[in-house]
Amino acid sequence: MSKELTSRATDYSQWYNDLVIKGELADYSAVRGCMVIKPYGYALWENMRDQLDKMFKATGHVNAYFPLFVPKSLFEAEEKNAEGFAKECAVVTHYRLKNDVNNPGKLIVDPEAKLEEELVIRPTSEAIIWNTYKGWIQSYRDLPILVNQWANVVRWEMRTRLFLRTAEFLWQEGHTAHATKEEAIEETKKMLDVYAEFVEYFMAVPVIKGVKTANERFAGAEDTYCIEALMQDGKALQAGTSHFLGQNFAKAFDVQFLNKENKQEYVWATSWGVSTRLIGALIMAHSDDQGLIMPPRIAPLQVVIVPIYKGEESKPVIDAKVHSLMSELKALGISVKYDNSDNVRPGWKFAEYELKGVPVRLALGLRDLENNVVELARRDTKEKSSVSMDGLAQHIIDLLEDIQQNIYNRALAFRNENIREANTWEEFVALLDTKAGFISAHWDGTGETEDKIKELTKATIRCIPLNNKQEPGKCIHSGKESAQRVLFARAY
Amino acid sequence: MSKELTSRATDYSQWYNDLVIKGELADYSAVRGCMVIKPYGYALWENMRDQLDKMFKATGHVNAYFPLFVPKSLFEAEEKNAEGFAKECAVVTHYRLKNDVNNPGKLIVDPEAKLEEELVIRPTSEAIIWNTYKGWIQSYRDLPILVNQWANVVRWEMRTRLFLRTAEFLWQEGHTAHATKEEAIEETKKMLDVYAEFVEYFMAVPVIKGVKTANERFAGAEDTYCIEALMQDGKALQAGTSHFLGQNFAKAFDVQFLNKENKQEYVWATSWGVSTRLIGALIMAHSDDQGLIMPPRIAPLQVVIVPIYKGEESKPVIDAKVHSLMSELKALGISVKYDNSDNVRPGWKFAEYELKGVPVRLALGLRDLENNVVELARRDTKEKSSVSMDGLAQHIIDLLEDIQQNIYNRALAFRNENIREANTWEEFVALLDTKAGFISAHWDGTGETEDKIKELTKATIRCIPLNNKQEPGKCIHSGKESAQRVLFARAY
Repeated sequence: MSKELTSRATDYSQWYNDLVIKGELADYSAVRGCMVIKPYGYALWENMRDQLDKMFKATGHVNAYFPLFVPKSLFEAEEKNAEGFAKECAVVTHYRLKNDVNNPGKLIVDPEAKLEEELVIRPTSEAIIWNTYKGWIQSYRDLPILVNQWANVVRWEMRTRLFLRTAEFLWQEGHTAHATKEEAIEETKKMLDVYAEFVEYFMAVPVIKGVKTANERFAGAEDTYCIEALMQDGKALQAGTSHFLGQNFAKAFDVQFLNKENKQEYVWATSWGVSTRLIGALIMAHSDDQGLIMPPRIAPLQVVIVPIYKGEESKPVIDAKVHSLMSELKALGISVKYDNSDNVRPGWKFAEYELKGVPVRLALGLRDLENNVVELARRDTKEKSSVSMDGLAQHIIDLLEDIQQNIYNRALAFRNENIREANTWEEFVALLDTKAGFISAHWDGTGETEDKIKELTKATIRCIPLNNKQEPGKCIHSGKESAQRVLFARAY
Repeated sequence: MSKELTSRATDYSQWYNDLVIKGELADYSAVRGCMVIKPYGYALWENMRDQLDKMFKATGHVNAYFPLFVPKSLFEAEEKNAEGFAKECAVVTHYRLKNDVNNPGKLIVDPEAKLEEELVIRPTSEAIIWNTYKGWIQSYRDLPILVNQWANVVRWEMRTRLFLRTAEFLWQEGHTAHATKEEAIEETKKMLDVYAEFVEYFMAVPVIKGVKTANERFAGAEDTYCIEALMQDGKALQAGTSHFLGQNFAKAFDVQFLNKENKQEYVWATSWGVSTRLIGALIMAHSDDQGLIMPPRIAPLQVVIVPIYKGEESKPVIDAKVHSLMSELKALGISVKYDNSDNVRPGWKFAEYELKGVPVRLALGLRDLENNVVELARRDTKEKSSVSMDGLAQHIIDLLEDIQQNIYNRALAFRNENIREANTWEEFVALLDTKAGFISAHWDGTGETEDKIKELTKATIRCIPLNNKQEPGKCIHSGKESAQRVLFARAY
């Protein structure tokens, strides 16, 4: 019996959870708001991480590792950053447990092992890192510092969802230090481009690059650049952010350098990050009612082969053929699995690998062997075809490329169809409730109006697109003058 | 001015710290007992991690990720494990900070955000993982589970040392589940072999494989296998452990499976881990008074090239030659850096890369170019030679291999010279105080005697070597009958 999935039309949110759990990407854990990333989900994350890591290194960055803990006095040094994260901080207050004399076999926190200063578990690492950079930077010759960290962080969110919003998540955080403002801004934009390229080219998810409004900025940033993606339910998802931090952290931690003119100056900073949240974006951008659809370029498994045995004597013949095919595919760098387990039927396996989103499935029986063909099913369109064994490996390489393109184009067409203009408040509200998607509308540029719109509709300004067209108009809410449209949406 | 290093003879412990800090592997942090792993140190860890990861995957393991937090009630479920780690646990008790009304700009822990149940930061993950496995295992068909996790863990140690013993450290922990005792024991030993192969072949550090005494076992294990290495000061260092956990965790978390005979049975377990501590072993096994000596197979940087400019007009000529050489080396998979920075002299660079332990250094001036040669210095022996440009790449490949062998052989010879037999208590104490190293001696097999010896000499039984020779004798301390010698040492 194959696993039952809720359809998108029935309950989109349940559909998403079904895909994550029944597709074996992740599981709930015994810890509130924390998930277990299962081997299939972690293999996906590894592919994403390795690719991003390559791109970071290609742009001159190196990795390092900073402590999990931030002493409270450091955490509060940059006030805006501290204020932004204070409500979500897990705090370590003690460093020892002891036996509970009243309950043999049970432990209690040892009150005598109270820390003099509480330790915050990093929700982000600007504080601990800039406190460290202070010791690394004396002169302009020590700059730039281009460091990235792969780590776990904790934000005590009240409402959590697998991958999209979990108390603990895995991410990377780049933290760079520069001698000039221009160089820091250039870095901020460069890393936004790296993120956009990764998400579009490898995850096949189209994104809009933009800049956040002041209200939506990262706490402590001067400017937050972002990439925004659109999910199939018409909600937006912030897929990555890159922050120009100005001299805020340098001032908070007194990080100055001797510039070329021999003068002391505060260092300019950026930070940028993407997280396991991207997996949520990937799921909701491509999947269908039969399950996940993995983009070939980062799929944990690109090809699965299922034998169709007829009697014991067919096994060695089929197995031998498959093993030679597997060697050929592996030599070409294709990840492939042969599922010849004997406790479930081929139909069950078909459904299972469809659920897991494996891009290409091959099925092979004795008659296929005789005809020198194999049955090939592509996950994105569910088309089946009988394909010759001759030149099969090259055919699969081309097909994987085609699937990658196809799911990107599909997501792009959907995204583009779902950017609509609203010119009045009524249009805006009606679009939000009937079509969702991005709404391009005029806004008067004030935080007050933005707050009001959010309060009334739950829609937020996702971004002011880069290179936005300048076009005078009237704010859809206040009616005041506006110089350009911005992108609104309800969002994850 | 190059950085000054303490010599081993002057102060071994300070020498070690100098190498870590001046060699830019790691730095102290603002958090008690926690370190910052700097880019050079992290690049080394990445090479070690990637290689180990490859070996784990080649032996059928997959990666996953489990929560950082362990609810106290789960943590205490396996009593011996809990008791073993209770004294070192960092505990999260609150999930929010708030403004301190008495100190504007300062934060305090919000007393209203106290957790109902405290969360222990994982010192090791058996508890959270076996609680998860309960949901994954129903029948023998779900076994074995061969999962590894790369993660940070926290053990609140009172005395910390960079890499060797830090409150937070990076490691991998394998956690496997099996249908039979035999299979679990086989896994335990297989992973010990993987560790031994990694440490010897890649880190060039010889190890002795053995099993721990009951006193020295991992808390919650039935048997702890280990690899023990010898440092240059004659102290031993436990470089990795692999535990046969029996059914202890399965019973504590009630993880049963339906076996092939259709009966419910508790699952058999193993766990195994190595950590950033290995970097400490690497440093102390090979380095000398001039600095680190990196084994070529995992060196962050294998070759450095330093130009010897004479006048501006020599730069483009030398640079061009080096760039073509670099391309050739990189194409062969050799990591190489060209240091043509102009703010320090060649002599300073020579000292710096010696300190960092780069296996091969090339220096190149105009006269070398005219003679079609390059000056080559190998880090392990500090020999310099003039080498022809023709066939240089192959020469370097061979040389890297030779250096790897040489430092392994050197460490092996040192280790073997420093295993000595003691047959009386006086000999034992004298050897410990004059020669250190491993001491092979008879022991009566009791924990009491072991404790007594430790109390009197600070020496512990490092292991009972695998395939140990059976040889009757008298315990060096109690004089009682003994069936075999065991290895004692003072240890890190």
